[in-house]
Amino acid sequence: MAITQTPETLSSQETRLLARQNTITNTAGYSGNNLQANLLILPEKHSQDFHNLCLRNPVSCPLLGISSIPGNPHKITPTPCIQNRDFDIRTDCPSYRVYKHGKCIAANKPDLLDLWSTDDPNAENYTAFLLGCSFSFEAALCNATPPLTPRHQLSNTIVSMYRTSLPLLPAGIFTNATCIVSMRPYHESEVERVRDITRPYLATHGEPVDWGWDAVKRLGIRNIHDPDFGEKIEFKDGEVPVFWACGVTPQMAIEAAGDKIDGLVFAHEPGNMLVTDWVVEDLERLKEGIAAFQGWMN
Amino acid sequence: MAITQTPETLSSQETRLLARQNTITNTAGYSGNNLQANLLILPEKHSQDFHNLCLRNPVSCPLLGISSIPGNPHKITPTPCIQNRDFDIRTDCPSYRVYKHGKCIAANKPDLLDLWSTDDPNAENYTAFLLGCSFSFEAALCNATPPLTPRHQLSNTIVSMYRTSLPLLPAGIFTNATCIVSMRPYHESEVERVRDITRPYLATHGEPVDWGWDAVKRLGIRNIHDPDFGEKIEFKDGEVPVFWACGVTPQMAIEAAGDKIDGLVFAHEPGNMLVTDWVVEDLERLKEGIAAFQGWMN
Repeated sequence: MAITQTPETLSSQETRLLARQNTITNTAGYSGNNLQANLLILPEKHSQDFHNLCLRNPVSCPLLGISSIPGNPHKITPTPCIQNRDFDIRTDCPSYRVYKHGKCIAANKPDLLDLWSTDDPNAENYTAFLLGCSFSFEAALCNATPPLTPRHQLSNTIVSMYRTSLPLLPAGIFTNATCIVSMRPYHESEVERVRDITRPYLATHGEPVDWGWDAVKRLGIRNIHDPDFGEKIEFKDGEVPVFWACGVTPQMAIEAAGDKIDGLVFAHEPGNMLVTDWVVEDLERLKEGIAAFQGWMN
Repeated sequence: MAITQTPETLSSQETRLLARQNTITNTAGYSGNNLQANLLILPEKHSQDFHNLCLRNPVSCPLLGISSIPGNPHKITPTPCIQNRDFDIRTDCPSYRVYKHGKCIAANKPDLLDLWSTDDPNAENYTAFLLGCSFSFEAALCNATPPLTPRHQLSNTIVSMYRTSLPLLPAGIFTNATCIVSMRPYHESEVERVRDITRPYLATHGEPVDWGWDAVKRLGIRNIHDPDFGEKIEFKDGEVPVFWACGVTPQMAIEAAGDKIDGLVFAHEPGNMLVTDWVVEDLERLKEGIAAFQGWMN
């Protein structure tokens, strides 16, 4: 690539090639106009239940694409999500996690080639789900005038995340899971602007699910000053917590399903996302779900 | 119409004409293979927020159609939802309610012709939302082998409904609303069959949101033996409550928005539904939302 390129200006395919070569880990800031995706790959027998789970809980689990042929790691539906024919979902994330019976049994795997074989006719057929992530709406907050840059970006820490009592509506084997939320502090006077700016990003979690100090109790959060995931953030005078649905939620659904899952489940390593060919301009149609692009489906 | 026809075998258009003539009230059992819809009509300025509310809460507010031209009561998108050109959403429900600032100010209105004028250029432009209702999945339960007919149908009472603490995820002016659930008692051993049978009906609330005696507390239900709407149902030995999302929920969102709503809101009178041209066979595609039919949109 030309030496003048920055991670921000790389094409989605260029970033995926760097991920395939394991040259990069965290994809934050790469291919700035493209949507990045959380990844979840399940045995085909569970894919219908997981698909229903996403359709019933689109704020926590917004679908950006699905592998269209079970067992085939090269093809994603709808077509505009991933356009390159040499795409391979087993390699094009920087790094992967492996789950068995809902428990993480391996992390930081550079690829899934040893676990998902396309040569062995008796091998498990897997289906991949690409789900929206918060990077897109965070960019919109940074670019607002005046900017509403999330605090954890300024402090270069990981966003605070919390378990809640908010149920993920069940689908098939996926029962008893609750939502995870991410939290960004904002001054009370900024909340309506924050809501307005993130509202169009429904395919990447959209506007907040709740906000204000009362929301801590409503959401059943144990201790706002002690996040369950990520790092603690200090509140300034007049600031309130603002909560968004979080892409860690689908992994909690896998965890809650536990032994009901027969076979392995794969996910991206946190922060090591799959960069899609969707661009910010696609978000308006993606609000209606990927079916809005079905004319483009093969 | 031929004297041999029963309400069950009437076409959707025939039922709508009876509704227009105010010959019928309760539409239960009419046009058996067609999906019936809850109706909510809002001033155009609030339609984007309400549309987002539906997209964020598809289990409570499953979209079956939207009036495509604000102010035009004759045209619903996507086209297969309502195909007759003489359709008029102001007359084709048997009876209507009127809300102002979130409060019901009129009920049992036979039509909306006096409140929604298409002649006055200064009149408010309204947008209509058609939302899935439980009639469809109840028919599937009745037709199961062996049948799982809901108790309230056998006792000819109104299904029990409850307020919950489950938040409706906010969108724009629609904040602080909680979900309403309907409840049908089933023997514990029947719950998985009930879930399986209702799962495909995602566009009409789909599988239950929760079940079992523990669910009463989880959902924040005040008293299972004293429903907030509908009638009380007795539990038999070994039975547990099974809860579904309920089409009354969007009306609660209107109520919660209160003074933030500028202008009138119209809804159907409970049980007096709008019969659509959608048929049970469309449900699989409707699971993906009405965008799955966008090739048919005008």
